[in-house]
Amino acid sequence: MIETLRWRNGALERIDQRLLPGKFKYIKCKTARDVWDAIKKLKVRGAPAIGVAGAYGLYLGIAKSKAVTYKGFYDEVKKCEKYLAASRPTAINLCWGLSKIVSLVEKNKKRSVDALKKIILGEAQTILEEDKKICRDMGKNGAGLIPKNAVLLTHCNAGALATADFGTALGVIYSAKKKVKKVFADETRPVLQGARLTVWELQKNGINTVLICDNMAASVMRSEKVDAVIVGADRIAANGDTANKIGTYGVAILAAYHKIPFYVAAPVSTFDLSLKTGKSIPIEERDGDEVRKIGGKCITVKNMKVKNPAFDVTPARLITAIVTEKGIIYKPNSERVKQIIEINQ
Amino acid sequence: MIETLRWRNGALERIDQRLLPGKFKYIKCKTARDVWDAIKKLKVRGAPAIGVAGAYGLYLGIAKSKAVTYKGFYDEVKKCEKYLAASRPTAINLCWGLSKIVSLVEKNKKRSVDALKKIILGEAQTILEEDKKICRDMGKNGAGLIPKNAVLLTHCNAGALATADFGTALGVIYSAKKKVKKVFADETRPVLQGARLTVWELQKNGINTVLICDNMAASVMRSEKVDAVIVGADRIAANGDTANKIGTYGVAILAAYHKIPFYVAAPVSTFDLSLKTGKSIPIEERDGDEVRKIGGKCITVKNMKVKNPAFDVTPARLITAIVTEKGIIYKPNSERVKQIIEINQ
Repeated sequence: MIETLRWRNGALERIDQRLLPGKFKYIKCKTARDVWDAIKKLKVRGAPAIGVAGAYGLYLGIAKSKAVTYKGFYDEVKKCEKYLAASRPTAINLCWGLSKIVSLVEKNKKRSVDALKKIILGEAQTILEEDKKICRDMGKNGAGLIPKNAVLLTHCNAGALATADFGTALGVIYSAKKKVKKVFADETRPVLQGARLTVWELQKNGINTVLICDNMAASVMRSEKVDAVIVGADRIAANGDTANKIGTYGVAILAAYHKIPFYVAAPVSTFDLSLKTGKSIPIEERDGDEVRKIGGKCITVKNMKVKNPAFDVTPARLITAIVTEKGIIYKPNSERVKQIIEINQ
Repeated sequence: MIETLRWRNGALERIDQRLLPGKFKYIKCKTARDVWDAIKKLKVRGAPAIGVAGAYGLYLGIAKSKAVTYKGFYDEVKKCEKYLAASRPTAINLCWGLSKIVSLVEKNKKRSVDALKKIILGEAQTILEEDKKICRDMGKNGAGLIPKNAVLLTHCNAGALATADFGTALGVIYSAKKKVKKVFADETRPVLQGARLTVWELQKNGINTVLICDNMAASVMRSEKVDAVIVGADRIAANGDTANKIGTYGVAILAAYHKIPFYVAAPVSTFDLSLKTGKSIPIEERDGDEVRKIGGKCITVKNMKVKNPAFDVTPARLITAIVTEKGIIYKPNSERVKQIIEINQ
């Protein structure tokens, strides 16, 4: 498996995903600002991966703190949490990783600043290791949903490259590998995570993969007898409404029309039970040049007016099941989400 | 209006659509081979436009014929018809234009070869002029379907650039211009006709236009209260099933889900009554490099396995109405198609 994120010699190393599949290269993040920049510019992406990166970012942000009192140190921690959380608004895992660390600091008020620094680094490392285990558990849980000789379709990249090293939606595919005949990967405009990342890692893991343009999904569902669609998630509301990469909502409608099961694979950390429905999930609007340019080259009229929402929200009624590390939520609604999530909090 | 095709000094002049919107340039086609190449390589595209281009191509193919007998000349005409018809398999208008000319030759067996050449050129010119009138009639018919302050969505380019000079789907928009508040244009991967051509010509004609990636259509339909979707067609079967640019079928499903009317605008020449349903429409599979490369640059793994169907078929049940120059076919089925089309044949 590809290690997307790793801690080496006091720095967070990450694969520069903007260079894939052309170049495979690790880049060091040595400061909170490096991490902020990596998340903002999609050098690290995928909800679970930015959760892990954020946690290390917080450590890097306070590692050189000269605070001597708990109060002084805690203020720096909170400031750094706020700074990192603002790098991307939709994926809740980022806030989740950061607030996990902040809570831990709050629980250890009596400890010295040096001890707190070690606790923070330890927790970031725990989050990384947990992510690896969570993805494997999710994979095992989801594998049972995949039929023999399955033809699957996925959107964006919810793979090893979106997590510490195994993947959510693609983790399910890796776990069910022997049963998987073929995977269609949407290229996923504007940033082309499907064309650049998903097909690269699926092929690297020996999965028979076919790349399609996003607008071919309906035609492929009809002509290629797709058995299931599986995607990741960036934030899931209490009722199961799911924010994920722009285009997911459309794919879910197409799957429903073709009577194809539509699965979401996401760790418990993706759920935001403070939001009743998906209508309250903030949707990041990114720079229009992502739409206007491909590979730095303008593909349309100069300064063309565009829309560029990075995510959309798929209503729970279009989701056959949500796969988590703690179990599968079939026909998600507030009650069923609660049953799986609350057991574990 | 942009003249997409025009006859000047013994040559067919066409805008090189592959260079738009960066460069606006006419290229001369002096031989049938030039026309074949222009159609094959999408330098001329859009079902009605390739119908017109094909007709001129046939003239260019026989203009220098040295045949002295009707038989010899007719054989050349048939050979050239077959050659040009093979340039693209899906758009029926190409075959329609060519066979219209062949029928005319067959009806004029007694005329000299020189006279027949003039008849052929005259017919190509008639087809061009008719296309201009047909598009305007279609526009008038369709304009009544557009509500006040309309927010519209279109896919691919069914505009002036897809016809001699006015457009089918965009012709309806031009005719209803005063009522149109905004048009969302799908970029239309892989060849980006929406991003390159549609937004360019809509803006040139003073229409408020927003470019989106194909996978944003569902999200835009929900959040922007789209009032209607309008697209063109490459071939329509006897029951109203419609082949059009890849992605159209998906957009039609999304429109149905959001209860948005879905309109097709196409001239009578787009109907192929010899095919009972859309299942028999041949779908062109184009070079995979169209998917793998954008602007000559590979956007995915080298030699990645891809699918690249140029069209898909939208079943008649998803189509609210088909707008033709002869009238509107509401809730299309075999009987209603017959009523409008047979009156005119």
